[in-house]
Parts: sequence; C-alpha cells; structure tokens
Amino acid sequence: MENSLLEEIVEVQESPVYGKAYLQGIISSEFALARHIGIVVESAGDDGIVICAPLAQNANYKGSAFGGSLFSVAVLTGWAWVTRHLAAAGVSADTVIQESNIRYLVPVEGPLRATVRRPTPDQVVKFRRMLERAGRGRITLRVDIHHDRTLATEFEGVFAAALRNP
Amino acid sequence: MENSLLEEIVEVQESPVYGKAYLQGIISSEFALARHIGIVVESAGDDGIVICAPLAQNANYKGSAFGGSLFSVAVLTGWAWVTRHLAAAGVSADTVIQESNIRYLVPVEGPLRATVRRPTPDQVVKFRRMLERAGRGRITLRVDIHHDRTLATEFEGVFAAALRNP
Repeated sequence: MENSLLEEIVEVQESPVYGKAYLQGIISSEFALARHIGIVVESAGDDGIVICAPLAQNANYKGSAFGGSLFSVAVLTGWAWVTRHLAAAGVSADTVIQESNIRYLVPVEGPLRATVRRPTPDQVVKFRRMLERAGRGRITLRVDIHHDRTLATEFEGVFAAALRNP
Repeated sequence: MENSLLEEIVEVQESPVYGKAYLQGIISSEFALARHIGIVVESAGDDGIVICAPLAQNANYKGSAFGGSLFSVAVLTGWAWVTRHLAAAGVSADTVIQESNIRYLVPVEGPLRATVRRPTPDQVVKFRRMLERAGRGRITLRVDIHHDRTLATEFEGVFAAALRNP
C-alpha cells in the first residue's frame, strides 16, 4: 500500500492537467483579495509552483513590499501546492493554513515572487495516509521569496486538509 | 535616566493627539493594500489599539477570513502600536516587521478585529534604550483576533525600528 501510494504521488506531481490555468482560476475565484494583490500563477508543474504579484499595489511607504502582501503570496503558494496535489489525485478536500512562521530577511523592492519547495515523498505519503485514515491530514511546506537572486522572505506553514465527505 | 524614560513612556501612552484619526491617515496613505483590505482603526489610546476589517473583501471560498488578510490586519495593528508610540515621543523612525508567528485557532466568520496587547513598561524601556543608543531597536508584540468572544488568531511579531537621522 505504501508503495502504490508513493507511485500515485509521483504520477500526481507530473499531471499536466492541473497546471497554472487551473490554479489561477481557483485562486481568483476563491480568494476575494487575490485580485487586489494581483496574484499571477507563473508556473505549476513538475518543477513546483511559482506565484507572483506586482510591487505597485503591494508597496509600503518605503517603496518595498508590505509584509502582509508577502505573507499572502507565500500562503497562497503553499495552499496552491496542496490544492493542486489533492485535486490531481482525485481527493475532494478543503485545505486551510493552521500555523506559520515568516522571516523577513531583506526588503523586496520588485515583484513578489514565491516558490514552494516540493516536499519529500515521505512527507507526502504521511500526509496522504493521515488524510485517508483519519479524514484529516497536515503537511508543512516551505515557501521562499527571492529579490533578484537573494532569499528575501522565508515562510514555513502547516497546512491542514479535511476530506469533504469522509 | 531609566526613571525619566519610564515616566516619558507613560506620558506617551496617554497622549490624545496620536489617536485613531492619526493612525487611520498614516495607514491609508502608507500601505497601498490597506484600502482593499478595508482597514478601519477603531480605537487608539490608553486601552491599546484596535483595528478592524470587514469580512466581505477578505473572505475565502468557505466564507471565513483569508489567512493572509488576518495576518495583514494583525501586522498593521502591531506596526500601528510602534508607530504611534514613537511619533508621540517625538522619535523619527521607520518601523518594519522582522519575523512573526501566527496560529489560526478557529475560523473568523465575521469582521476581522485585531487588538494589540500593550507591552510591559520593561519591554518598552528596553526598546527605547536600544533605539537611543544604537539607532535601532526591536520589540515583540502580541496581537489577538477574536471571533465573537473566542480567541481565533494569535499573532506574535518582532518589530524593528531604525532612527531616520541617527
């Protein structure tokens, strides 16, 4: 069972159906603020997920990105990873953020571009097994925001999914 | 010197000049996203600072508040405390969020109302002393968001201030 789940997970991560158009649609329709932040899904595929927002509507008085906007872009990127993974696996679940930590290392004075680090297969197997057995599962994801090539914001979030019809 | 700073801090906290109109103006003009979030400063005075945003523009697909909006309201409330405190003390400084942790305990299905816990006089004296001596100071603030009377979101943030002309 572990092995077949692992094989299925690998397959899900390679699914071309749940790409950036899918995620752009779901984020725009499901989060009222996403339009004002200017969320653009740049890529969603084997290489992970990249979500971007322009600086203009997210700037603070110093001309750099507002901490709340950086957090929002990061949390949506992590949420997008879980949502895409479960949708591609045919699992009907709601995902929410449960807890997170964010560190602002240097100001972001350009586009807010967030990249989710793909979790390890072990993490994903554990998450899917919890979801299957208990109807609820949690997974910790790391999202990085770079300014030019420097790591500017480090985000770590615990995402909790609950089956819709357990 | 410690005593005179402590006395000054008590006086600053009671200043009526830097009230909700002052904070509403500064937040609206200095954060592009605040208008879209619908930030309203409800009170700013001796009892602390309360900042609110309506659910409508901050809702997620489940009809509860988006985690990024809850974070944004909380971080602005902490930022408002530091900004008001320093302005009332005649200290010209820029304040940014450096690191924070947020826990989502229960969904917020109504207005997003954040209250900053007033830091202890010891914390404030230490912060002001660092700022005076090194040109930079840090203070950790706790912000709570309640839904009805239940604590729904716990935010803790480290705010860093830097003198403009040290």
